[in-house]
Amino acid sequence: MKIINERDLPNIPWEDRPAGENRPVWRYSRNPVITRDAVPNCNSIFNSAVVPFGDHFAGVFRCDDTSRRMQLHAGFSADGLKWEINPQRLTFDCPDPEIGNFVFGYDPRVVWIEDRYYVSWCNGYHGPTIGVAWTCDFQKFHQLENAFLPFNRNGVLFPRKIGGNFAMLSRPSDNGHTPFGEIYYSESPDLTYWGRHRHVMAPVDNSWMYTKVGAGPIPIETSEGWLLIYHGVLTSCNGFVYSAGTALLDLERPWKVIARSRHYILAPQTLYECVGDVPNVAFPCAALCDAATGRLAVYYGAADTVTALMFGYVQELVEFTKKHSLV
Amino acid sequence: MKIINERDLPNIPWEDRPAGENRPVWRYSRNPVITRDAVPNCNSIFNSAVVPFGDHFAGVFRCDDTSRRMQLHAGFSADGLKWEINPQRLTFDCPDPEIGNFVFGYDPRVVWIEDRYYVSWCNGYHGPTIGVAWTCDFQKFHQLENAFLPFNRNGVLFPRKIGGNFAMLSRPSDNGHTPFGEIYYSESPDLTYWGRHRHVMAPVDNSWMYTKVGAGPIPIETSEGWLLIYHGVLTSCNGFVYSAGTALLDLERPWKVIARSRHYILAPQTLYECVGDVPNVAFPCAALCDAATGRLAVYYGAADTVTALMFGYVQELVEFTKKHSLV
Amino acid sequence: MKIINERDLPNIPWEDRPAGENRPVWRYSRNPVITRDAVPNCNSIFNSAVVPFGDHFAGVFRCDDTSRRMQLHAGFSADGLKWEINPQRLTFDCPDPEIGNFVFGYDPRVVWIEDRYYVSWCNGYHGPTIGVAWTCDFQKFHQLENAFLPFNRNGVLFPRKIGGNFAMLSRPSDNGHTPFGEIYYSESPDLTYWGRHRHVMAPVDNSWMYTKVGAGPIPIETSEGWLLIYHGVLTSCNGFVYSAGTALLDLERPWKVIARSRHYILAPQTLYECVGDVPNVAFPCAALCDAATGRLAVYYGAADTVTALMFGYVQELVEFTKKHSLV
Amino acid sequence: MKIINERDLPNIPWEDRPAGENRPVWRYSRNPVITRDAVPNCNSIFNSAVVPFGDHFAGVFRCDDTSRRMQLHAGFSADGLKWEINPQRLTFDCPDPEIGNFVFGYDPRVVWIEDRYYVSWCNGYHGPTIGVAWTCDFQKFHQLENAFLPFNRNGVLFPRKIGGNFAMLSRPSDNGHTPFGEIYYSESPDLTYWGRHRHVMAPVDNSWMYTKVGAGPIPIETSEGWLLIYHGVLTSCNGFVYSAGTALLDLERPWKVIARSRHYILAPQTLYECVGDVPNVAFPCAALCDAATGRLAVYYGAADTVTALMFGYVQELVEFTKKHSLV
Amino acid sequence: MKIINERDLPNIPWEDRPAGENRPVWRYSRNPVITRDAVPNCNSIFNSAVVPFGDHFAGVFRCDDTSRRMQLHAGFSADGLKWEINPQRLTFDCPDPEIGNFVFGYDPRVVWIEDRYYVSWCNGYHGPTIGVAWTCDFQKFHQLENAFLPFNRNGVLFPRKIGGNFAMLSRPSDNGHTPFGEIYYSESPDLTYWGRHRHVMAPVDNSWMYTKVGAGPIPIETSEGWLLIYHGVLTSCNGFVYSAGTALLDLERPWKVIARSRHYILAPQTLYECVGDVPNVAFPCAALCDAATGRLAVYYGAADTVTALMFGYVQELVEFTKKHSLV
Amino acid sequence: MKIINERDLPNIPWEDRPAGENRPVWRYSRNPVITRDAVPNCNSIFNSAVVPFGDHFAGVFRCDDTSRRMQLHAGFSADGLKWEINPQRLTFDCPDPEIGNFVFGYDPRVVWIEDRYYVSWCNGYHGPTIGVAWTCDFQKFHQLENAFLPFNRNGVLFPRKIGGNFAMLSRPSDNGHTPFGEIYYSESPDLTYWGRHRHVMAPVDNSWMYTKVGAGPIPIETSEGWLLIYHGVLTSCNGFVYSAGTALLDLERPWKVIARSRHYILAPQTLYECVGDVPNVAFPCAALCDAATGRLAVYYGAADTVTALMFGYVQELVEFTKKHSLV
Repeated sequence: MKIINERDLPNIPWEDRPAGENRPVWRYSRNPVITRDAVPNCNSIFNSAVVPFGDHFAGVFRCDDTSRRMQLHAGFSADGLKWEINPQRLTFDCPDPEIGNFVFGYDPRVVWIEDRYYVSWCNGYHGPTIGVAWTCDFQKFHQLENAFLPFNRNGVLFPRKIGGNFAMLSRPSDNGHTPFGEIYYSESPDLTYWGRHRHVMAPVDNSWMYTKVGAGPIPIETSEGWLLIYHGVLTSCNGFVYSAGTALLDLERPWKVIARSRHYILAPQTLYECVGDVPNVAFPCAALCDAATGRLAVYYGAADTVTALMFGYVQELVEFTKKHSLV
Repeated sequence: MKIINERDLPNIPWEDRPAGENRPVWRYSRNPVITRDAVPNCNSIFNSAVVPFGDHFAGVFRCDDTSRRMQLHAGFSADGLKWEINPQRLTFDCPDPEIGNFVFGYDPRVVWIEDRYYVSWCNGYHGPTIGVAWTCDFQKFHQLENAFLPFNRNGVLFPRKIGGNFAMLSRPSDNGHTPFGEIYYSESPDLTYWGRHRHVMAPVDNSWMYTKVGAGPIPIETSEGWLLIYHGVLTSCNGFVYSAGTALLDLERPWKVIARSRHYILAPQTLYECVGDVPNVAFPCAALCDAATGRLAVYYGAADTVTALMFGYVQELVEFTKKHSLV
Repeated sequence: MKIINERDLPNIPWEDRPAGENRPVWRYSRNPVITRDAVPNCNSIFNSAVVPFGDHFAGVFRCDDTSRRMQLHAGFSADGLKWEINPQRLTFDCPDPEIGNFVFGYDPRVVWIEDRYYVSWCNGYHGPTIGVAWTCDFQKFHQLENAFLPFNRNGVLFPRKIGGNFAMLSRPSDNGHTPFGEIYYSESPDLTYWGRHRHVMAPVDNSWMYTKVGAGPIPIETSEGWLLIYHGVLTSCNGFVYSAGTALLDLERPWKVIARSRHYILAPQTLYECVGDVPNVAFPCAALCDAATGRLAVYYGAADTVTALMFGYVQELVEFTKKHSLV
Repeated sequence: MKIINERDLPNIPWEDRPAGENRPVWRYSRNPVITRDAVPNCNSIFNSAVVPFGDHFAGVFRCDDTSRRMQLHAGFSADGLKWEINPQRLTFDCPDPEIGNFVFGYDPRVVWIEDRYYVSWCNGYHGPTIGVAWTCDFQKFHQLENAFLPFNRNGVLFPRKIGGNFAMLSRPSDNGHTPFGEIYYSESPDLTYWGRHRHVMAPVDNSWMYTKVGAGPIPIETSEGWLLIYHGVLTSCNGFVYSAGTALLDLERPWKVIARSRHYILAPQTLYECVGDVPNVAFPCAALCDAATGRLAVYYGAADTVTALMFGYVQELVEFTKKHSLV
Repeated sequence: MKIINERDLPNIPWEDRPAGENRPVWRYSRNPVITRDAVPNCNSIFNSAVVPFGDHFAGVFRCDDTSRRMQLHAGFSADGLKWEINPQRLTFDCPDPEIGNFVFGYDPRVVWIEDRYYVSWCNGYHGPTIGVAWTCDFQKFHQLENAFLPFNRNGVLFPRKIGGNFAMLSRPSDNGHTPFGEIYYSESPDLTYWGRHRHVMAPVDNSWMYTKVGAGPIPIETSEGWLLIYHGVLTSCNGFVYSAGTALLDLERPWKVIARSRHYILAPQTLYECVGDVPNVAFPCAALCDAATGRLAVYYGAADTVTALMFGYVQELVEFTKKHSLV
Repeated sequence: MKIINERDLPNIPWEDRPAGENRPVWRYSRNPVITRDAVPNCNSIFNSAVVPFGDHFAGVFRCDDTSRRMQLHAGFSADGLKWEINPQRLTFDCPDPEIGNFVFGYDPRVVWIEDRYYVSWCNGYHGPTIGVAWTCDFQKFHQLENAFLPFNRNGVLFPRKIGGNFAMLSRPSDNGHTPFGEIYYSESPDLTYWGRHRHVMAPVDNSWMYTKVGAGPIPIETSEGWLLIYHGVLTSCNGFVYSAGTALLDLERPWKVIARSRHYILAPQTLYECVGDVPNVAFPCAALCDAATGRLAVYYGAADTVTALMFGYVQELVEFTKKHSLV
């Protein structure tokens, strides 16, 4: 297995696998890395996206304020652990006020494609849909057209064009606490018009993801296929439980699933995952990968309240996915 | 008021307004025009689309068979009243079997744009979305990419490009008997990729359309704006009631509503509209317009069972819409 | 059995019991008496209240317009069958615009108490509640305070004070198609402040009224108790079914049920009751009683669309109620 | 194809197939055969079971009274069309009052097995379950233990023992308007204890039976398998629609489906099927078969209000089932 | 800003604002003040009301017993922190057994008006409604008529008459876990009859209170208006979240909202607020105010399990409310 | 009171009642006894059944794996506290693959009857129903027919035949997170065919068990009746809460309830009961009883995540049940 198109990132957050641990990923021992009140007047900080930025790291953070408005803030960090998050929500430049008018924004993803960073997020426009913007510096953000009609969530761009087009995964939804969700793939020549929609994957009966599934961090390109970390949801008698799993998608036709692990890699089991604004949520949104070692640091929202980290190796996750594959 | 870009169609179905009738539209006295069993082994024929075709008329018909599978059939008529509907469902040529694989199809619309007829319909692809195809002869249909991600219904193309792009209204939905629905506008340079999504209109409280609204026939271009006939739904304690109303949309920015009638033009009140597979449905899908006189013959599904006709004048509907406008 | 405090009304609508009919009430042979479009631009006229007015009759009518707004209109009739209904909705004089601001009004009842007519209806004030007004001439209506907090429906005044207070039955509800409903009794010294709320009666399992019950026409005073005609609702797999039944309430403590018939007196079974805006509704709202003969003409809404009449004798209904009593 | 173990019944109700009719069954031209008020004080008579009884016919009828209590009455007829139904509900002899206490009873089936008639019905015992009784004369009914735990409906006995045991189809349910339903098979050595439960068949997506299915009349033994007429339900936006279809079950292992028609044989389309206490219901409960000719007269409840008849030939239904089979 | 009509209460519970804390309120460092088992055989003690009583404090406490019956107990304390709660539930003297019959009681409020203490609570009478009683000594409680018809909760009396009438806020509800809730105002001349109902405030979209709002402690009179602390609820995918916020109401027309903070003052974030019988609840029911300093000690139920305290200054809360006002 | 048919088991887990504790049961101080990851690749271990096995203990454990599949594992322990659980799920020998095909299995109970151990559990067969098997050694398990039709849960065998028949309690359900549940009793002569179904007990309004009830451990025979420990559920606005209570059933007619405690004996209050995969669950499944002393060690699932222990005395629980009885 070879990791493709990722840089060496020796300075990403990391802890070695604890002795005796045989799970494919392990939690950071000092979780959560970002507490709910790390930004003044914030209710919670979670489901946030980070990327390498020069020698350091930058990110877009979901910061719900104390009116529980869902907003995005930019932030910077030298080590990926201690973050300076802008106390003001980020604003978007947008030529069309119909689109640029901010209603709410949440669950961002950030990816570098070719020459700039792109942000995609759940954007309020007569319901949730996928907002898209680009930035070079995490200071100035240029908002493009929404990718899709409402209702949609979890729009995740691929880190390179596929077949000459930008490519995005998303999860069509309804306008509430959607009790269904499948992952689709779409393409765009220009980030304005989207099409060639393909179904990627559905929930699985009698499993940790029987209610809905949605893409998580930016997919990681490997010689075995795109490594996709995604969230799956089951519905207990006391509500949704969000866990994380993995799949491998075909490199050039990413709507083809090569392998998909029957087992989750992480489910909410610690106090900070089980107790908070929404109990029992582990929701991965971003991953830093060191190409040289295959080390992976995955940021995930915990209990819709704080931001946590888990660690693993790309090669092990690829193996795990193939070994326990449903496909 | 002037009708734009419509042809003279002196032979469309027509009856003069009955004496004493003061409503903006009136029913054909011999409704329904197409009964549920006009095609062998059919359960029902409704929500169908007709267009002028040479000197005659052609159409795409929703014909549910006796297994209650929703399917499309092509048909032809000399007078718009007596129809020869192909007893075999129509099939689509499609280069990509992932898209061309037929699951279900219903609620078609047909429109002539530039050089050919386009069909849009609710197409089954991991849930309902908007299928698009073209034909020149109603014999051979060429299927394009689905316009949007699921879940979507009531995709209605404009009869000409707007700002150089194809333009479509649609109603995002969920995967069931959707209890919400608003009309959106989208554009495409090539009928493959769609974007520039704009919100057009929402339900209205305490009205015949407080649950959902969706576009009906192809909009009719007039000097006062696009005349849109649409359906609205209220939820009684015994289910949905589908009625028809009118709005005027800005010619070049059709997501701007110029006027919108507070009153319906037709609600289910006859036995064939109130009794059938789904009681209390009047669902307009197609309109034939004679430019010379402004006569309008609107085909609508009744009780999700049969096809009926109502008549009116474009100019009167435009006036009615402005006079009773909510906007 | 003696009828108390009712006038002789020899001119109320009437037909003798058809030969062979053994039900406690029978339908008017020329139902519906008021069709859905008896008033211009009306969608439906039903659930309306009539009273003797001089030698003739007057009434307050629920007339939903073609935007499906629920409104009240006044009307007059010489024979109780042919009605002149004002094409304009009635307006209320109200010193406080917070209360007088009209949102919607439906399901009126009218009663003469002491020196004037009182109207109670379901009045829109941040949800449905009970509006109260008085009139002497059915031209000018003086609106008082709403009797109760939202959410409430089917407020029915008694035709005389009880224990020195005005008295009203009502059915607390929620803000939708309420799936529950019980009848309560309340008193007021002044029609401004209400209290001494008492529970009167609840739905009954395995019966035509297992979902909810609500008071219908103004109770009729008899030596055996107040004769209450009320509606009851069952929920079939295809929605609510509204039927009518009878009970006898204690004269001075009307929250005490003396008798209550296990059997309905009328259920929706004719085409005009089973087909319309809301199928399967028979909803009584007013009764004219001829004290000399005990003849009763009960107006009821049919299918939430038209107004119909049924006939019976007070003495027979009292007997029927006692003979089949649940209590 | 041969019909097995059925008698010649030349006097069953019958009409020849109308000219031009190509459906597998056709309606009796004078439907309904039993009106809602054929029994005094009845609200409706439907979902009833008839069998040959000497030279004539007898049956157990669901007669809901005007309190909408669900009850069973016995009845007799010389021609299967004109029925003398006992105005008193039938009562059961039962040694154990815990079981014999009548709460409600509906949707009976009757079958002759070996030496007597057996009745199975939906019996109220802390919810609906399957009651079982036997009779020789339709005067005296001997109640046995309920076959199953609640909640269950549509218990249908086979007309002979299978593998030495009594055999029954049933449809487990919940305690309301159950939105699911599959057919199961169970056996009993003694009609007291039941077991060896096997799954027979489930609803089918995108079809007239996508919500639930349940057995109808007593299965008819043929050389091609048991001919099962059953009901299937789809959920429109305005409620359930009950239609009838056919399947062939293995003779000795009836939980094995040999063939199952994709198409319904009858769906609610006439006024008496579409309008009534529950619109859009055609619910078959009993069939009379003339072995000599293969003529079949199927009794079905229409709109949960009246009893109707359809006709067909066993051999044609077997062919139809195999020709359009899903299996 | 001036506090009106409050006494100096130098001995109320108090802790100074912690260093670095910039929120408008802060939690007592030794929360919870009353644990779930502070009374023998209790399941939980929360949503309780305390008042100054002589030099000490008295209160009415919601104590659910281990059968989970909701009951009220009286209690006393010298310091407002250590409570002697009567292990027997309090009983009410009531002349009318129809009203006095105890079914359940919960969420009490207590207020001194003129010459005695009044208790209002959610009282079971054919559903939840507002019970009212008075006491002078917290030993003997005299029950009056229920203020309103069911279904109602969170009845909160003002501490003085307004316009010569007693005045109460309440939140009409349904009979379950009501998914809606707005605050209304009502008046009574005599605490028997209530009227002049006015709407005060509704939920707010995209906020911590988008599902429902209800009044909390007795309003505190200030020169800027009545300071109302209230609860608001949002619905996460895992249930309701109850937080606390503030508003200012007009002194003489308290249904007029002068200011209303967009931000909550306290949301469930500690373990005792997030974990318990109902996770994620902070529900304020009572406040002690020291007029001299403006110190405020607010009692609130945490996780529907225990009783906790938060502290703040009236003047700061008034400022906070105006600064972040939605109005 | 005398314990009947139980062995002396001096080595069951035990801790004396803590000083000051006056509840009928108390928790093991070192709960949970089995953690969620005591078996490799397990997500959780709870709702499990243990029995004396020779001088030691054996059991059948619900071990959900990290795909959240519900499975059963066998295990052994010398002291009932430290368990060796087989890392492979147990498999059943079953002659009929239709029944033996494993879909899912959960919530087992184990009982010794006459000459062997019987296991009953919630078994997946087209929905949940009650699987039955026997073993002598907890190595080899012989699967019998499912006891009932779906949908059913919490099948609990009595430890001896009653009236010559095997006897089982169960809780009919639907196929989801069933919002209802009552306990029924059934008998079988041979563990293949079941019948003589009797209703035992229902939920109780305004209590900790108002939504559903289901049997827990194997009933314990005493001279006062069968001591049944069962679970009851209430529905808070944030989901189900599972607690444990007690009842006494008639020895020879166990569907007759002799006494039933109004109060729970244990409700979820500790962190391991309130936080986990399903918050707020205490679900008893097995009890070890030392006949000599009456000591009882009850195993219960906590938060659907871990296995915990509570202790008590049979004689005290019998007394508690009678003292607080609802019956």
